[in-house]
Parts: sequence; structure tokens; C-alpha cells
Amino acid sequence: MIPYQWNVLNDIAGIKIERERNDISIPNEKSHAIENFKIAAGKVNGTHYGWTFQDSDVYKWLEAVAYSLREKMDPGIEQKALEVIELIEEAQEPDGYLDTFYSILGLEWQYKRLAGSHELYCMGHFIEAAVAYYDSMENEKVLNIAKKCADNIDANFGPEEGKIHGYDGHEEIEIGLLRLYHVTKEERYLRLAKYFLMERGKHPNFFKDQATCYKGPNALNGIENMPDTYFQNHAPISEQKTAEGHAVRLVYLCTALADLAATTQDNEIYEICKTLWKNIINKRMYITGGIGSTVLGESFTLDYDLPNDTMYCETCAAIGLIFFAKQMLRIEPKAEYAQVMERALYNCALAGMALDGKHFFYVNPLEVNPEKSKKDPTKSHVKPVRPSWLGCACCPPNLARLIASLDEYVYTVSDDRILINQYIGSESVLKTKDGEVHISQNTEFPWDEAIDITIKNTSKSTIKLGMRVPDWAGNFNISIGDRSLNENITYGYFYVEVACDTTISLHISFTMPLIRNYCNTNVSENIGKVAISRGPFVYCLEGIDNGKNLASIILPEESGLTYEFEDKLLNGVGVIIADGKSVDSSSDSELYSRKRPLIKEHKLKFIPYYAWANRGENEMRVWINEG
Amino acid sequence: MIPYQWNVLNDIAGIKIERERNDISIPNEKSHAIENFKIAAGKVNGTHYGWTFQDSDVYKWLEAVAYSLREKMDPGIEQKALEVIELIEEAQEPDGYLDTFYSILGLEWQYKRLAGSHELYCMGHFIEAAVAYYDSMENEKVLNIAKKCADNIDANFGPEEGKIHGYDGHEEIEIGLLRLYHVTKEERYLRLAKYFLMERGKHPNFFKDQATCYKGPNALNGIENMPDTYFQNHAPISEQKTAEGHAVRLVYLCTALADLAATTQDNEIYEICKTLWKNIINKRMYITGGIGSTVLGESFTLDYDLPNDTMYCETCAAIGLIFFAKQMLRIEPKAEYAQVMERALYNCALAGMALDGKHFFYVNPLEVNPEKSKKDPTKSHVKPVRPSWLGCACCPPNLARLIASLDEYVYTVSDDRILINQYIGSESVLKTKDGEVHISQNTEFPWDEAIDITIKNTSKSTIKLGMRVPDWAGNFNISIGDRSLNENITYGYFYVEVACDTTISLHISFTMPLIRNYCNTNVSENIGKVAISRGPFVYCLEGIDNGKNLASIILPEESGLTYEFEDKLLNGVGVIIADGKSVDSSSDSELYSRKRPLIKEHKLKFIPYYAWANRGENEMRVWINEG
Repeated sequence: MIPYQWNVLNDIAGIKIERERNDISIPNEKSHAIENFKIAAGKVNGTHYGWTFQDSDVYKWLEAVAYSLREKMDPGIEQKALEVIELIEEAQEPDGYLDTFYSILGLEWQYKRLAGSHELYCMGHFIEAAVAYYDSMENEKVLNIAKKCADNIDANFGPEEGKIHGYDGHEEIEIGLLRLYHVTKEERYLRLAKYFLMERGKHPNFFKDQATCYKGPNALNGIENMPDTYFQNHAPISEQKTAEGHAVRLVYLCTALADLAATTQDNEIYEICKTLWKNIINKRMYITGGIGSTVLGESFTLDYDLPNDTMYCETCAAIGLIFFAKQMLRIEPKAEYAQVMERALYNCALAGMALDGKHFFYVNPLEVNPEKSKKDPTKSHVKPVRPSWLGCACCPPNLARLIASLDEYVYTVSDDRILINQYIGSESVLKTKDGEVHISQNTEFPWDEAIDITIKNTSKSTIKLGMRVPDWAGNFNISIGDRSLNENITYGYFYVEVACDTTISLHISFTMPLIRNYCNTNVSENIGKVAISRGPFVYCLEGIDNGKNLASIILPEESGLTYEFEDKLLNGVGVIIADGKSVDSSSDSELYSRKRPLIKEHKLKFIPYYAWANRGENEMRVWINEG
Repeated sequence: MIPYQWNVLNDIAGIKIERERNDISIPNEKSHAIENFKIAAGKVNGTHYGWTFQDSDVYKWLEAVAYSLREKMDPGIEQKALEVIELIEEAQEPDGYLDTFYSILGLEWQYKRLAGSHELYCMGHFIEAAVAYYDSMENEKVLNIAKKCADNIDANFGPEEGKIHGYDGHEEIEIGLLRLYHVTKEERYLRLAKYFLMERGKHPNFFKDQATCYKGPNALNGIENMPDTYFQNHAPISEQKTAEGHAVRLVYLCTALADLAATTQDNEIYEICKTLWKNIINKRMYITGGIGSTVLGESFTLDYDLPNDTMYCETCAAIGLIFFAKQMLRIEPKAEYAQVMERALYNCALAGMALDGKHFFYVNPLEVNPEKSKKDPTKSHVKPVRPSWLGCACCPPNLARLIASLDEYVYTVSDDRILINQYIGSESVLKTKDGEVHISQNTEFPWDEAIDITIKNTSKSTIKLGMRVPDWAGNFNISIGDRSLNENITYGYFYVEVACDTTISLHISFTMPLIRNYCNTNVSENIGKVAISRGPFVYCLEGIDNGKNLASIILPEESGLTYEFEDKLLNGVGVIIADGKSVDSSSDSELYSRKRPLIKEHKLKFIPYYAWANRGENEMRVWINEG
């Protein structure tokens, strides 16, 4: 992904950029993201092109590079990263301000249209990238750019007189500042992050007032008229009891809140996080881990409103939910958080890219009919095939940085324990408070039902190792040699102690039953329907395997399900076969009749949801009629 | 309705006007429609307020008054009509041009922004009103205003050099010109109507070119960017094989085409009409007779795309479909046309107003959850309760003129026959080519299963009287005294001859079975569902009778249905009772679980669809799970 995305950001990939929906205002001629930096740096002439937040595509790419170099050095990629850092430094204003849009179009407008300007959002992404790059490569220069940037924000925002008492329209700077605090231990950054979080929603008119006063350049004119909920600006955070508004904004907000709660051990803030978490997980999340029920505002709507064919389920929102879960695991070692992380990762987020890593979904539907996507304008955002790149390209580099840092989600390392949240074949060296722990996972999971884990504790303390017992697993067992360990499960983690200077080898086994999932009956769309899953994967039907009109398919209660692995299909996937039925369309004549349609036999083949839309344009459906 | 609407148009009704959807550009402070005429007439100072097509509200009201005075004289109402006609005459420009928007805001822009200006649309509505008023009241003055108006259009549009080779963005003038031709026999009006119809779609760039050249006032800036299909401007009419674009525009176009085909006995044009008719009826019409599957462009989408909860089904579109059917009946006496007329009239159109005649729906859903209408922005147009008036008020006066002229739909009078399309208790005097025929229908239909008809033929010819055999009827029988008549049915009409100077009394009887309707299996939304009907009425469930979460309700195949009339309910309606079931929500806990929900008994009560939303805000649903 990283070389491909580099070419796209430099406008040399030779691809067609598609609008994410029918909206002629979406810029889709080119990325221009690197070119914007060159212009802002005064190296070439030209003007800004793209969204106000185009810079963030570059920052997310740089962050992905940072993680990838940590895993495996690549001098060619490193060279490109160093060039980008150089370019960013040149584009940065002397006072630390960093935003190519306003540097090019008018610095006098900086911080004056925060509803849509994305200035702090972009700087937040830069700070995240800088911290990651510093972590991996010990590059002081990039960290200094980030500190200069944060210092500029600190000089402009805060409770003090003369500073702006406001916040960005899109949360993200809060995450960046907290990460910067973690490496620098500079209290100002922590304080500023907390200020932004706690100030939010206290000035609902802030965005509208700014828009009234200042008429400077803004690619998002009119965004101020979005409802306050869109920006999580309708009430102070402590009074927000439901997940409202733009889904990515909300989960980025929650990620920062949870980081703050973990960092400052603030139980009140953790309670806010838990309230929002529960609302999402229990009432507003798709079975794929997707969130955001409507394209209008890319937003949450209301409890149990989960339409399958008009939803948004933005890839970035699923990624943000994974970020949120990761921070929650830092506070409490509960498997619930890792389960949601798994759901979003293996399903909605992974579906966000094609098997080739070069095509991406912005929107991840649970039901698609390609003809409707083309001809029903309310479904123009529901694409049946992944484009090479998108007019708003937030998702592709977000996926790149997630995948490249997967180790941070597989494990949660704290002072007193290591949690294994996800089972993924890997070799890792984890830093603990007083040394290192080497963990290798040897497994064909998520297809196979066994994992061999070797833990070598070279730290100075005994390690409490918590291994997640997946909620979907049967007969979960951990053994050493021939000896099964006694169950020692707390909050969904099976604990084993590993003394210092010890190496142990564990064998984990379990079954992955083929599960029929039912939805809460308050979700009107899914009544009478069933969704199939195995292990972490939600399954779906695709037209190429099951014919047209998937709505007509029935998976009767009594139909047996059979699992088999097909190594030639979709780079190797486990499929599920069933003796289903379907409504017989052969007697269709009129639009309405008194004749109840007949039912016929219909062999069904389910594939994992993440793998759909890799064999051309066709129908897809997750929730299937059961009766 | 007429006095109420008069007060609204004069801004003295003391009501709140609601936007038809969440769109702050919709003018909803007042109607101002009469005031616009006063300003254009130079009687008061001020500026135009409302849509570019606000004038048409007044014209449709005047047309309704014309029909109502024909049925029953009312000097008070007549006086108001005469005042309005006087005002219109004063607002008309010396050259015959009539449009308050451009008279007030700049006559130099006339006919220069036809995509959205609605100038010809408004004049078409005025001509319709004028012809109706002339028909009823022999008022020459109003007819002269209309002729002057048509002459101005004729002077500006046509194939001749120097004239505009174009047409209005919203079809309607074609209907008006044809009606004007019918009363005046002036060939120019027929020719001009035909010109507009046949020219359409030959200049797809016409609207965009005008918008590029002329930047004058236009309340609908940007409408030129709608797809060509929106205006039925994507291809010449003869090449249009499917119903595309804005649903009201399409059926108004078809109404004029069918009138032209009937008037000129042009079989080629009738074939165009039949192609579009069949596409609508067989693939794009809701069971309620509603049309228009999406709010975006208030448009058709594609074959078999009939979502129940996001559709448009505009009241005006159902009315336009009734207009279309009426014209088709003039060409061929086929019951198919009258059946669709009945479906749209008794269901979608009638649902467009409350039982009090003072509250109106723009959008007529088949499934509503009030919470979703409030909190899901993609459903803001799906109102659960009828507003007093709407920002775009096309529907209320359209209903008024339809209801006031129902006789023209009940009967189709041609040279060789009279068709009884609808059975409605009534007394009518029908003018035939050589005299009059008096028909009285004595019946409690649509509730009861019998009609007594007396026909007195005072014309000079024997009349072929065709009585429609409804498609839903059982044991249809016509008798004179004790003697059943032999079936003599052609294209769904049972024919009886009535000699001149003869009076006969017929007794029609039939049964109205409670019908389970199934939808074509290509309509994904309705697979596994059933809709109940009796006679012309489609039935629905409302929350007030059946509890919350109507999606959870099941009407099993084996459940019996019982009909009973409740004279205290909803001004008296027949209800249908069934022993249904529902999904038991008492065990709901998580959002997703492995537990198949249980089913419990649930007594169901269906009411006719037209009567829904008259008992406060609640859920409603037409298509019910059967299994």
C-alpha cells in the first residue's frame, strides 16, 4: 500500500479518482497533496487543490511509513519519508503554524473558520505521524516540527484571555496532543488536549459566530449550518449520553477522551467514555463493526436505526472505533473491548480495501444492488466496486496506518500485565516497565482452530499474561504439553503467569462453530433475518456465487451449514455452504397479484464479508431471510 | 377545502406552514400567493415571496372553485373567484404575459431560465383554471385572459425563426393548451401543445445553455444541473421507453400526450403513452398508486425499486397518474385504466389529506416510524402527521381541483358510449353528442357490496353504457328487477344498451373479498410480505391499534381475516381484524445474539390506508411479514 499511495499523493499513479458520491463539488481531478506542500513551501508556483484537509492524507501516509519501518527497514521508503519531513518543515510557517490550505490562500484567515477548516485536525494528524516516526526512527527533527506546531496551537487556544475559546470542527488534535505528551511528558500538551475535550459543546454558537464574522476561503462553506450534533457541539461532553453526529468525529473524540482517562486515571471521564461506548455497541453498531447509519452528515441517527442498504459505515469510522477500543483496554482489561475491536477490524475495516491493497471503499454496506447504486440517487454513495482512490481520500491512508501498527492492537501492555487481544501469527518484542517480553504466535487462525504461543520473559518481573477467550469460541482450552491449564478467566481473559527469565510454550485450541446471529428486534430491518459468522468473520452472500435477487434467498432454520476452506478462492478463504431456498420468480407476471410466490431449493455459498467485491460488480447481502 | 385554502392564500388562516423536508431554502413564512398578484398588479408595494411557481396555487384554487360552482352555486365563493380573476387580469402584462415572479423581479428575464422558472407551468395552470371557469360559469373575461396568455406563448415559442426552440422545465402548459383548444377549437393552440410535446428532449442542452447565458432572478438556481432525465429531457419523447425523472413532470407530460393522442386520433402517440403507462404500472408503482421512489429529484429510479420508507409518492404525482388514466380512457375503453385510477384515488391521493380537509401530506409513505422521520435526515420528508400547509403547496389545491371534478373521473363520455369507471353515490347529468343522459348511483360503496343505478337517456341515440367490473370483485352481477343480465363484458366493462327516451334501473351486486396481495419478487423490499385490501382500499396497520414496532408483526398464511364496519372510528370505516403474531421483544438484551427471537400471539387491526395519521403521531405500515 505504501508505495502505491506515495504515487497517488504525487499524482503519478495513473489512476482515476472517483467521487465518493454524486456531488459535483467533490474535487476528483487529482490528489495534489504533495504538490500543495511544495507550493506552500515556496518551491513551486501554483495554488491549493483538493479539500481543506488534503494535508492529512500525507500525514497518515507518513505515520504508516513510521510503523512499517519499525517492522522492517526499507531505505527507499525511508528516503521518501525524509523528503516529506523536509518538505513539511519548509511548509511550516515561522511561528509553527502548519496548514498548506491557509498558507497558500491567506494566512490572515487562520483559525477563523474552525467549523470546516480542519486546521487543528490536520495538525493533529501531523503530530501523530511525527510521534510515530520519532518512536520508530528516533528522528528529533520531525518531533521538533510537531512541538513547534503544538506550541503554536497552545499560544492561540486556551482559557486565557486573548486566546480563542474554541475547538476544531473535526476532533483529532486531541489525539495528537496526547500522543505528543506521552513522548515529551510536556504537561502543556496534556492540558491543551483536556481543554479542547472539555470545552467542546460549551459554545454551540462558536462555529456559526466565526462564520458570520469571517468570510475567508473555506472549501466547506455552509458546514456551519449543520446541526450542532454533527460536531458533537450540542452539549458539554459530560452531558452527551448518546453517540451523535458525524461518526468519525465522534469516535476520534472518544479515542482522545479514553486516552485522557487512562493517562490521568480520571474515572469521571472514563464513565463518559463508557456511556458513549455502550450506546454505540448496544444500539448503533452494525454487525460488521460499521457505524454511521446515514450518508447525510455521515452520521449516527438514532438507537436501533441500522438500515442495510443506505447506511454509511465509513471505513474511517470503523478504524476510529478500533482506536477507541484500544484506549478502553488501557483502562480496563475487559474482553468486550477487544471483541468489538475484532469485529470492526476483521469485517468493516478490512472490507475497506480490496485484496490487492490498491482499491478502497469509503462506504461499507451490508446490502448492495449495483443497479440501485447507479440509478437511485439516494444510494450513489453505496458503491458496488472499490475505486482506486477517492475524492475525499481519508480512508486509504487511515487503513495503511492501522494495518502497519497492528501490533498495538494485538497486544495491550500495561505495568502489571500483557493482554493478547487478537490471535495473529506474528513475532513481537514488547517493552514492559522493566524489560522486554518476546511473544511468538504460530497459527493459521482465523481459519484454523489452534494457536501455539511461545512467551520469553526477559524482563525483571513476573508477567501476568491474559489471553482473550473469544465470545464466539467453543471448548476454549490452553495447555502446556499434555496438561490443560485450569481456567483462570477474568473479564474474558484467561490468565497465565510467566516468571522472569522463563520461556513457556502454550497451545490454545477452540472450536469455531458456524453461528446464526440474530439482531435485536428493535432493528426493524433485520426482523426475521439471520447473519452467519465463523470466528471473527461475518459472512455474506455474493451474486457471483448465488445468482441474482439475493433478497429472495431464504436460509431456513433447519438448514445445516458446512464449512470448507477454498485455497484457490479470493487468496484462500473459508466458505460456508448451505441447503437454502429462494422465492421462485418464474411465476412473476404482474407487479401485484393474489398469488403467493412459490419457494424452491437453492444451494447457498457464503464468503467472508471482507472479501466481497473482489470479483467484479455484483449483488451482496449479509442479513438473509430465515423464514 | 375551498374557503380554508382561500384564507391560506391570503395569509389569514392563522396556521403554521411547514417545510416539506429539512431544507432551509424552502420558503415557509407565509403563502403570499394573492399578495404577489396585488404587487404585480401595482395595487400594493412589496416584492415577490415564495417559489417561482407560487402563482399556480391560486390558479388551482380557482379551478377547484369552477368545478364546485358547477355542482353547487355559492355567491360568496363566486365573488371571491371574480375578484381573483380581476386581479389576474390586472397582473397580466399588456402583451399577455402572466407571471408575478418576473413581473415583479424583472420582465427582461422572461422565458430566459425555463429549467426552473415555471413560467409556462404557471400559465398552463391558469389556462386550465380559465377553461374550467368558462365551462362552469360562461365567463368570457377569464377565457380572454387565457387566450391572450396563450397567444403570448405562441408568439414566443415554436419552430419558426426568431422564436424560442424550447420548452418549460415542468410540463403543464401542454395540458392547458389542449384544454384551451377543446373549448376554442383554435388550431394554433393544438399545434403549440404538440410542438412543446414533440420538441422535448431534442435539445438536452437547452436548459444549461439558457442558464449559462442568462443570470437573472431564479429561485431555483442550480436546477439546470439536475440530470436530463429529471425534466424528461434526455431523449425525444418517442424514444422514451421508461418513466424517468420527476414523477409529477412525467405524468403531466403523459396526460398531455394522451390528450393529444385522443384528440388527433394519433396512434403513434398512443403507443408512446402505452409504453410509459406499462412501465409505470407494471414496474414502478406502489400498491397505493403512489409513484416516485426517491426524494432526490422527487423521481422515479429504476424498475422494481419500491422502498417503503424512503420513497416520495407525492400526492400530486398520484393525482397526475389519475389525470393520465382519464385521458387513456378516452382513447380505449379498458378497465385497466380505471383500475389504476381507482387505486391512486382511493389510496395515495386520498391519503394526501386529513379527514378534516385542512391538513395535507406531500409525501405518502408505505411505512413510517415517527422517530426515524425526526432523527434520520434521509427521512425528513417522510412526515408522520399532515401539516396545515406546506412550503411548496402544490398538493393541497391540486387535491381540491381533483375532488371538485370527480364526475369527470367517475364517467368517461364519448360519442358511442358512456363508461362508469367508478361507483360513487351521486346524481349526474352527462352531455353526449346529441343530448343528455341522467345517471344516479345509489350506494354505500366502497363499504357496501351493492349499487343501484338509474339511467335516463334523454339524448337522441341509444347509449352503450359500460359498467366497470372491478378486478377485486367476486360474483359480479347486474340485474334488472329479478332478472340477472347476461354477461356482456369487453375489456373489463359490462355493457348494457339504453335506448333513447328510456329510463332503466339496474342493480349491481358483488362481493369484496379480503385480499392478500403479493408483490412481484423483483421488489426486494416486499419479499415474504403481504398487503391486505378490500375493494378499492389498501389497508395498513397503525401503532395506535397495534402497538409499537410494526416491523415485528406477522400475519401468518393461515390467519383468517374478518371485516367489520366501525361507524365511530375515523368518520366511519371498515376495519379488518386478524389473529396475527409478532416477534417477542421481551428477551431482547444485546444488539446481536445467538438466540432466535420467540413468536407470540398478537391481535391485529387494519384500517384503510387513506385514513392513517388522523389520530396523532404513530407508526404505520402497509406491507406486513407473512412468515
